[in-house]
Amino acid sequence: MLSRSNARLVHALKQRKTRETQGLFLAEGVRVAEELAASDIDLEFALVSTTLGDTPRGHTLQSVLSKRTAVHVLRDDELKAAAATENAQGVLAVARVPRHTLDSLAVPAPARVLICDGVQDPGNLGTLIRSADAFAFHAVLLLPGSVDAWNPKVVRAAAGSSFHLPIVTGTFEQLPSWLRAQEFYTLGAAADGVPFERSQVRARTSLVVGNEGAGLRAETQALVDRSVRIDMPGPAESLNVGVAAGILMYLLTHGDT
Amino acid sequence: MLSRSNARLVHALKQRKTRETQGLFLAEGVRVAEELAASDIDLEFALVSTTLGDTPRGHTLQSVLSKRTAVHVLRDDELKAAAATENAQGVLAVARVPRHTLDSLAVPAPARVLICDGVQDPGNLGTLIRSADAFAFHAVLLLPGSVDAWNPKVVRAAAGSSFHLPIVTGTFEQLPSWLRAQEFYTLGAAADGVPFERSQVRARTSLVVGNEGAGLRAETQALVDRSVRIDMPGPAESLNVGVAAGILMYLLTHGDT
Repeated sequence: MLSRSNARLVHALKQRKTRETQGLFLAEGVRVAEELAASDIDLEFALVSTTLGDTPRGHTLQSVLSKRTAVHVLRDDELKAAAATENAQGVLAVARVPRHTLDSLAVPAPARVLICDGVQDPGNLGTLIRSADAFAFHAVLLLPGSVDAWNPKVVRAAAGSSFHLPIVTGTFEQLPSWLRAQEFYTLGAAADGVPFERSQVRARTSLVVGNEGAGLRAETQALVDRSVRIDMPGPAESLNVGVAAGILMYLLTHGDT
Repeated sequence: MLSRSNARLVHALKQRKTRETQGLFLAEGVRVAEELAASDIDLEFALVSTTLGDTPRGHTLQSVLSKRTAVHVLRDDELKAAAATENAQGVLAVARVPRHTLDSLAVPAPARVLICDGVQDPGNLGTLIRSADAFAFHAVLLLPGSVDAWNPKVVRAAAGSSFHLPIVTGTFEQLPSWLRAQEFYTLGAAADGVPFERSQVRARTSLVVGNEGAGLRAETQALVDRSVRIDMPGPAESLNVGVAAGILMYLLTHGDT
């Protein structure tokens, strides 16, 4: 059973405004909920469907969640109706957004940071966060105009990586001075850049990727020390932003520091 | 104006069954329609919104389409209602599915082929087709259980690459003997594979990627000469299938032949 006020909260958290005022977000899907339960992020409550426990994996998840927060059991159709993503797999958690600021970021000596400039598609941003995590990046920074990192579809596409590394929203005022103060060398992914080479990688390197259609905005271009592109021998004009960033992050991590 | 029968056809082409029986598909979005108009694929007709011509790019597209096929002009809201994808950008074309078979594929001496095993998400398959095109792969082969390559969302995510290279649906009976006859060396992307190295690339190399959740099925595993993985130093358990395949295709293209 779900109280009316909790039902209202879950519904309202589909809106960015509510997430921002409440400081809460929705996490849906088995893998995401597993990673959330294993993180130190505060949980408010969880909803599970009556059938989640039918599989050993779901059963374990439900018991792990129960140790951390109040778990409300709903019928499959009720959970489906409450969920914000298409296939919530019988589990939804309400949790507190981890707050990080540029000033509080601990930056190790060799460091990699991904900067997203106006990425609009939730699936793309989630994939970017997941890849940044896979390649041991230290943070994901969002510039204004990006989709909210705590949008349920972003969290779902990030497959739990949202809980592994700091995600910080910066402004065009803060970010340039922070990058300079932290001695980052900034590469910008751009179709008219020079082909990526390992020699472009410094101990602290940040990578900026832009909007799906428009690429880097003028303000963002000002952050960039060097524009790089991925050599593409085929006829396609460009790559999906998540794929392009994934390849560059792979190369940055496997290049020389 | 759009005749009732054309309106019915557009609606029906959102269903895989209709696409298969009619041999037609929907192409939506400015970039996709531009690439379609520039291809040798047969067009049945196109729908454009009254506002498409308001931009120079839209104006050019409309005139290019008009030289190739009948173009029906609709109100913005009518076009939106007809479209299968979320943001059709004022243009939708009905076109004939290009038919390729394994037997008719021309395979050059050094060749790269992508094989998709049960990829379910339209956005992922479209991204895979786009990346294969970007890295000059010669064909994309689909195994049974994959989303239809001519699903409007796949076509949209492929950003025109669907018209650049052959897309062939094969069976578990045909594919192994075809790969052997064509002397392909087949790499399978798998979390438990060996780290990818350039020495694994042969003149004719194919890459198999699996379903988002389950990975390669047993039947598919039988095609694989060597399982490879992408070295990931970070905590994420896995990459998005489109990103993983994008990195491997990049490495395959930039490795030694």
